[in-house]
Amino acid sequence: MSTPWIHRFAKRTKAIKSSVIRELLKLTQRPEVISFAGGLPAPELFPIERFQQACQRVLAEKATSALQYGTTEGYAPLREMIAQNMARYGIVAAADNVLITSGSQQALDLIGKLLINPGDRVLVEAPTYLGALQAFDVYGAEYASVPIDDNGVQTERLEEALRCGPKFMYILPNFQNPGGVTLAEGRRHQLVLLAERYGIPIIEDDPYGQLRYEGEHLPPLIVIDRENLQRDDGYRLGNVIYLSTFSKTLAPGLRLGWIVAPPDVITKLVQLKQGADLHTSTWAQVVAYEVACDGFLDEHVRKIRQVYRERRDAMLAALEEFFPPEVTWTHPAGGLFLWVTLPEDVECNALFADALRQDVAFVPGDSFYATGDEGGRHMRLNFSNAPPEQIREGIRRLSIAVRSHMKRPQPITV
Amino acid sequence: MSTPWIHRFAKRTKAIKSSVIRELLKLTQRPEVISFAGGLPAPELFPIERFQQACQRVLAEKATSALQYGTTEGYAPLREMIAQNMARYGIVAAADNVLITSGSQQALDLIGKLLINPGDRVLVEAPTYLGALQAFDVYGAEYASVPIDDNGVQTERLEEALRCGPKFMYILPNFQNPGGVTLAEGRRHQLVLLAERYGIPIIEDDPYGQLRYEGEHLPPLIVIDRENLQRDDGYRLGNVIYLSTFSKTLAPGLRLGWIVAPPDVITKLVQLKQGADLHTSTWAQVVAYEVACDGFLDEHVRKIRQVYRERRDAMLAALEEFFPPEVTWTHPAGGLFLWVTLPEDVECNALFADALRQDVAFVPGDSFYATGDEGGRHMRLNFSNAPPEQIREGIRRLSIAVRSHMKRPQPITV
Repeated sequence: MSTPWIHRFAKRTKAIKSSVIRELLKLTQRPEVISFAGGLPAPELFPIERFQQACQRVLAEKATSALQYGTTEGYAPLREMIAQNMARYGIVAAADNVLITSGSQQALDLIGKLLINPGDRVLVEAPTYLGALQAFDVYGAEYASVPIDDNGVQTERLEEALRCGPKFMYILPNFQNPGGVTLAEGRRHQLVLLAERYGIPIIEDDPYGQLRYEGEHLPPLIVIDRENLQRDDGYRLGNVIYLSTFSKTLAPGLRLGWIVAPPDVITKLVQLKQGADLHTSTWAQVVAYEVACDGFLDEHVRKIRQVYRERRDAMLAALEEFFPPEVTWTHPAGGLFLWVTLPEDVECNALFADALRQDVAFVPGDSFYATGDEGGRHMRLNFSNAPPEQIREGIRRLSIAVRSHMKRPQPITV
Repeated sequence: MSTPWIHRFAKRTKAIKSSVIRELLKLTQRPEVISFAGGLPAPELFPIERFQQACQRVLAEKATSALQYGTTEGYAPLREMIAQNMARYGIVAAADNVLITSGSQQALDLIGKLLINPGDRVLVEAPTYLGALQAFDVYGAEYASVPIDDNGVQTERLEEALRCGPKFMYILPNFQNPGGVTLAEGRRHQLVLLAERYGIPIIEDDPYGQLRYEGEHLPPLIVIDRENLQRDDGYRLGNVIYLSTFSKTLAPGLRLGWIVAPPDVITKLVQLKQGADLHTSTWAQVVAYEVACDGFLDEHVRKIRQVYRERRDAMLAALEEFFPPEVTWTHPAGGLFLWVTLPEDVECNALFADALRQDVAFVPGDSFYATGDEGGRHMRLNFSNAPPEQIREGIRRLSIAVRSHMKRPQPITV
């Protein structure tokens, strides 16, 4: 069936960033490949027994509401539970401040829909989460980038970017994807004050915040913003929209995320969500609530932390053991990823092809930059999806490919 | 928390049509209200036992894939099953032509995202599905409307609307929401030929097609389009995008719909869906597949047809019994709704308030018009959500409110 019309009729938006990661993942499906490319949670940790009990209870006691249409805002007991859980991180929110979304990705889409006119600039970290760029690109976003270092986004370079008039900032403060770095506490305060000074909102994306493996929890931007508001010294913005998800703590297949925002922002997002998908699957929401309730989620997150900490340590140890000294990497205090910086002469996309020949995969860094092409010498490695011994073996294989590229040898034949 | 910035920063799109239906539904939550306002399936028909078996099987045999990230296109066995099921209606599609969406509503959103630039016109029926207007409004759609009659959209008035250069047509051929009417076969052929002549695609929205209570199934527009293509007489468009859903046959709380389109259209929609929500809940997809497979869905749809036919007949009989002769209504051959036309002197929004005082609810017709305000004397009645005796009682109550408005009496006090 020929469809010439689609090329004539499709909207001329900015070219959609083809999902490099998803295309790559297809190449890494061979069972012999050890993949550090995805961002997949460890499936062996999914609490299957608890899901079984939850399904039985839901279908025995509240099947008709779990299978019927629901409200756009989300399942009330789930919103309530989220509000309560966040209180421990100092986030003061009532259920009315919480909108359930179809994964965090939908939260990014709704925010783009609400705020971005074609040509509006968004201030992002360099590197930043690829999925956010995909969500914002569709609405015609342009970008201003501020580089990160080991302490997160470099706030001393923020003002320069703010002067180009971005519509909002998009920041991942904890165990950033892809950098694996965490925004230092002093910088968090600077960031919030700069947002106030320039009068722009902050989107705080925090999918991994609960997965901290060392050190103390740092105050979320939304908490600092609220504290500033309460000091009553002229600070007036109250302008952080906070996003999180059950994808990394419960199961990504549920597609459940949430937005915390002031009620009038929630009202506008609810109107947009109505048009986008009416509401998030009640079936997924009610089952997730039954799984998570009565403190189960906390207990389960403790288990995940322990397993992922071991895997992170295994990856750090293997990098130390196998990688040449010219290569550096971040030391993530939590989350799922670390970020490797190679010497300037290594080109990651070529390296990727050779790594695949060694049956190991990663994501080349260039997908994570909104502006410029600083990504050529970086790779993102995921450590949550493979057990320690596989991680060691994968890093060993990867080190062979890396060394061969550093020495510019003959192409390896397989 | 004050958020003045949101009013300054939110995009100036066309004013979002506030969801009249959802606001109304809040008023109709009192247990004593018999509501014909929603579009809710009968919850007592949800196949709960089958869901129990399906959940057990999924969690015992494929839990890790049901809870993990999935592909944007959707769960492969479900896409395959949908392709096979549609073949019986003559729709020739491979799994590659099927994209799973988070309800049909997301399909409408993705189509808006793909095709509508601000100011583009969309040709719609008058009246048409409110949710489609909500989805398209966000992208800045303008509209051209063509009225319906008992045989669906009046194709003899279509050309006039086509001359104003719409980007696409949005048509509900079967048991239209809200009209309850079905597009006659001759008009289906005219519609497809006119779309070809004017070179624009058709979005065929068919959520109710399987719920026919009388008469013969008519060929979908996508089938006619394909037949024309195969005749090889210069017809060249291949331009129907077909939408359907499990919301009315299985359970709306799953939020599972699908799009059938040529592969290059699917590819573009997949890219947009990646940015919108990565993919639809695998948990909902895998469970739905296990519920629907092995012919269960067909068997279940037969049961739904029988029950809804009784309810439709109960509503038609009650309207005949209680309503004054000046009032007319459509005779839906399937679906969930019928459409009542009142004498010109009756104003439906005022009637709605009085009906609520009688503990009965409906949706005033004006929400369903994209242009003009022809809806003042119409009401949409849903017959799927209440048993026959309640339907009769509800129509009796409604007839009191209707009669009182026709005679312009003193306001009723409660």
